[in-house]
Amino acid sequence: MTRTHEHRVQIYYEDTDHSGVVYHANYLKYFERAREHMLGTQELVRLLEEDGVGFVVYKAELTYKAGARFGDDVAIRSTVELESPYRAVFKQDAYRRDELLVAGVVQLVCVDAQQKLVKIPDTVVRVIDG
Amino acid sequence: MTRTHEHRVQIYYEDTDHSGVVYHANYLKYFERAREHMLGTQELVRLLEEDGVGFVVYKAELTYKAGARFGDDVAIRSTVELESPYRAVFKQDAYRRDELLVAGVVQLVCVDAQQKLVKIPDTVVRVIDG
Amino acid sequence: MTRTHEHRVQIYYEDTDHSGVVYHANYLKYFERAREHMLGTQELVRLLEEDGVGFVVYKAELTYKAGARFGDDVAIRSTVELESPYRAVFKQDAYRRDELLVAGVVQLVCVDAQQKLVKIPDTVVRVIDG
Amino acid sequence: MTRTHEHRVQIYYEDTDHSGVVYHANYLKYFERAREHMLGTQELVRLLEEDGVGFVVYKAELTYKAGARFGDDVAIRSTVELESPYRAVFKQDAYRRDELLVAGVVQLVCVDAQQKLVKIPDTVVRVIDG
Repeated sequence: MTRTHEHRVQIYYEDTDHSGVVYHANYLKYFERAREHMLGTQELVRLLEEDGVGFVVYKAELTYKAGARFGDDVAIRSTVELESPYRAVFKQDAYRRDELLVAGVVQLVCVDAQQKLVKIPDTVVRVIDG
Repeated sequence: MTRTHEHRVQIYYEDTDHSGVVYHANYLKYFERAREHMLGTQELVRLLEEDGVGFVVYKAELTYKAGARFGDDVAIRSTVELESPYRAVFKQDAYRRDELLVAGVVQLVCVDAQQKLVKIPDTVVRVIDG
Repeated sequence: MTRTHEHRVQIYYEDTDHSGVVYHANYLKYFERAREHMLGTQELVRLLEEDGVGFVVYKAELTYKAGARFGDDVAIRSTVELESPYRAVFKQDAYRRDELLVAGVVQLVCVDAQQKLVKIPDTVVRVIDG
Repeated sequence: MTRTHEHRVQIYYEDTDHSGVVYHANYLKYFERAREHMLGTQELVRLLEEDGVGFVVYKAELTYKAGARFGDDVAIRSTVELESPYRAVFKQDAYRRDELLVAGVVQLVCVDAQQKLVKIPDTVVRVIDG
């Protein structure tokens, strides 16, 4: 398992809805941003362009505890484990200082250009194994 | 439990990402649109404006099977059950014709203007109980 | 010029921001949805898949008069004119009943798979010329 | 007029559409993020919470030259001028290194809790006047 990776998200107008807090679907966006930084954006771009391999979300589970508000600074804290050569499981939580806002588990698999399941590439496995 | 409610979603440019299919977080939006039609938008507006009561997502679980594409006509098929006086559990699936694209379970609770948990309002319970 | 085309948009949670009204960028989404219905979604899909030709926005001008709210039923009223064989100019306004909310002018051009400017396809010209 | 303010935006999956580049409406989001950093997020939060005063977009004009792609690092370069005590005009451009992607002009006004036009607050005028 990796050490905990932290990615900061500032909450803008676009993130909130008329209830005053962040729209619930947006946490999936923040979790994805965090995963991209964790795995390395340029390697993800290279895998897609050179090898036609991309990551897709297979499962996502979210539990909402409290809502972030406009101007908040939210920390996405993530760890990742390989459950098999085909599946990476990310534990991703959104915090406002010490307060857990949203707890998530997101499972990813890799597909090739024909959307066929392929093993998670070695370059990414090495990042995950730390 | 309610009979299955169906809400149709057309997939536009805005819904897709550069992988060619619908961005994974957007299914949470489609599920919410479907729930609003199911429960009655005008009653939800009234509850919020007159009673200060709103629905918030407490848990969401999504399993992704296949991706919808630009121009697709996607059907969100939903049923809902009351698990307690405080919690409504929606089973919501996205279909393209007979093909299941995304299977979801979304749990909702109600909060008042102070974000305190309250019972699900009677007017909504009556809709859920059909 | 075409006769006025009308496309209805219901305002959901996802559309609003914490100020209570629709987030300003979203009107560009509603205008695009309207244009797709106007030109014919299936023909747009065919042009992209068979000919590699897609529409891209070249210019957009928006003037905001009032904000739509959760539960509102907004009508996007659009007309389109060909300014040249390469450019289609859409006048697109968002109304809540008789109240003009947002006035827009959106100019579109076509590009091929190499992002090179091409003439607007005949099948679309015929729709625009009515 | 202020000196040029620069805000960096990384392009994620969520930002792109199936054409492979950033969805056109999203530049309005990036411009808003940049304006918030420029004016000071915490002061904007304070104005809203204590004085009930918020900024709203009155006009936006965008010209699209080229599209940003997944993984790109985009710089939003902004300047702002007060055209009157009621209106701030932002010139905002999106660049990928030296390449201009999108040129924008966004006009903002302030409204109170009743959506009535008010003067731009002194604390913000001081930031704009540099």
